[in-house]
Amino acid sequence: MSELAPKLPQRVRIVEVGPRDGLQNEPLPVPLVEKLRFVKALIRAGFPAVEVGAFVRPDLVPQMADTAEVIAALSTEERVVSGEVELVALVPNLRGLQRAKESGIRSIAIFTAASEAFNQANTRVSIEESLQRFAAIIEDARSSGIAVRGYLSTCWWCPFSGRVDPEKVERVVARLLELGCDQVSVADTVGAATPLEVRALLTRLVQTHPLERLAVHFHATRGTALANTMVALELGISTIDAAAGGLGGCPFAPGAAGNLATEELIFMLHGMGIETGIDIEAVRQASLRMEALFGRALPSRYLRAGPFVPRDGSA
Amino acid sequence: MSELAPKLPQRVRIVEVGPRDGLQNEPLPVPLVEKLRFVKALIRAGFPAVEVGAFVRPDLVPQMADTAEVIAALSTEERVVSGEVELVALVPNLRGLQRAKESGIRSIAIFTAASEAFNQANTRVSIEESLQRFAAIIEDARSSGIAVRGYLSTCWWCPFSGRVDPEKVERVVARLLELGCDQVSVADTVGAATPLEVRALLTRLVQTHPLERLAVHFHATRGTALANTMVALELGISTIDAAAGGLGGCPFAPGAAGNLATEELIFMLHGMGIETGIDIEAVRQASLRMEALFGRALPSRYLRAGPFVPRDGSA
Repeated sequence: MSELAPKLPQRVRIVEVGPRDGLQNEPLPVPLVEKLRFVKALIRAGFPAVEVGAFVRPDLVPQMADTAEVIAALSTEERVVSGEVELVALVPNLRGLQRAKESGIRSIAIFTAASEAFNQANTRVSIEESLQRFAAIIEDARSSGIAVRGYLSTCWWCPFSGRVDPEKVERVVARLLELGCDQVSVADTVGAATPLEVRALLTRLVQTHPLERLAVHFHATRGTALANTMVALELGISTIDAAAGGLGGCPFAPGAAGNLATEELIFMLHGMGIETGIDIEAVRQASLRMEALFGRALPSRYLRAGPFVPRDGSA
Repeated sequence: MSELAPKLPQRVRIVEVGPRDGLQNEPLPVPLVEKLRFVKALIRAGFPAVEVGAFVRPDLVPQMADTAEVIAALSTEERVVSGEVELVALVPNLRGLQRAKESGIRSIAIFTAASEAFNQANTRVSIEESLQRFAAIIEDARSSGIAVRGYLSTCWWCPFSGRVDPEKVERVVARLLELGCDQVSVADTVGAATPLEVRALLTRLVQTHPLERLAVHFHATRGTALANTMVALELGISTIDAAAGGLGGCPFAPGAAGNLATEELIFMLHGMGIETGIDIEAVRQASLRMEALFGRALPSRYLRAGPFVPRDGSA
């Protein structure tokens, strides 16, 4: 059906962020054995990239305290050894980078925000100060052959200051890329963006930067994540972040949605004939196991429904 | 932002189907007093049309047995009296039409399927026989000044026979309109359609029929309903069916999604500057009350999250 929508990518690279962006938001740390089972299942499902943890302060974020052990254990996985899957760890500062380098991981992610108020609240420094700190991190990482992914939070709405100016977002994206980020993922942190807002910002970005240096990171908080993803695809962006099961919501609000659910994304992409290389049922089974561990339903709608299989088996 | 997407309608007419398509799928009938409270709340929220019940066999579908009483009680509502809101009741046959006429309702909905296997399983007659029966119902209704809405099930996928041929769908839509349906709503009954499939069918339909005679009816089963809705909007279709709270899922599968959730739809539309005339918070409160009645979370993601309100109040 490519003639109907000539701009859609033929293949999409899904960056699975559940083990980091998802599990970091759970109140309790997942035991290492279960986390490893989860991440290994995701690797075997065929993801090209999995964000496995964060080198943040273990006293403040105990959910990520075992990141080095996760990476060490995964280093025997066939797809990791062959370099088929990219493992990523979040790194907030030079100390985190040092730990990342010691772990042997080949990709890191750094993060700042497009909203000054959000950045101040989150990291207690201005965006400009963040960027200056990143310059050192990025240079050090790249000189060690480590790839760097940039996350940019609050690209449409800020929980403190409301609407975020697309020009401001554009400037920070450009700075992150100039500083040496291989790719910048623009995030709707509060899950409040709708498709026209998404189109307005992404249209600017794709005019200035190569498509492969851009990614999107949507949250399903109010249900618009897949509709927003369609806009990104129509503009040619082909790296999409998602979390298995829709992990990343608030566990204290039953049904509250977190990240765009990986299964919903894969279902839509495969339904449009877009390749991902990922086995959706393997992802679903990994998510169902996490549900059982947490003792509550995760937000991914595909988890409940499962594949569509007509009785004549023709699907 | 209209210059970015010139084809999007400026105003969308949401047909609220929760009291019928939603409540009909609940295992237990909702007491009349609660149903009335729900429907009146929806009417006051500003919907232009609400499907309030079905004149089906009360022994088979007890959830809809009180439809005449619902309509009678609503006939004192200000917006009903003024004709500002269109009440709709589903009617399967001439007997149902007779009951509809006795109730005083001014709009009915009839239903058939684009898939032969589905229609046989659901109504035990062929599509052609369905259409012949409809001819009599539609003629009778229209001669009494009653508007007729047609639902066409399984327009993309059939649970029995798999993929449904768009040409077949196109033929049945044309027949329903020729027979005198004011509008036909094409439905993704199993919630398996993805945006390119939706675009392929709707592109054909909008080339042949006036936009106001077409509506879409998506289910959120696997998360694609809003993305599919965007395709319909981009093609100029401006009547969208939805159910408050995302009612209509299977209550025995926690979290299973039913109809496109009205709150998610309104949030997306208002976020794009498209008018609906509906107070989203009033809808949310009506849905939350149904949640309390059922004792379980409904699938609408917006219900959990609520409005996005930045701390500076600027949204």
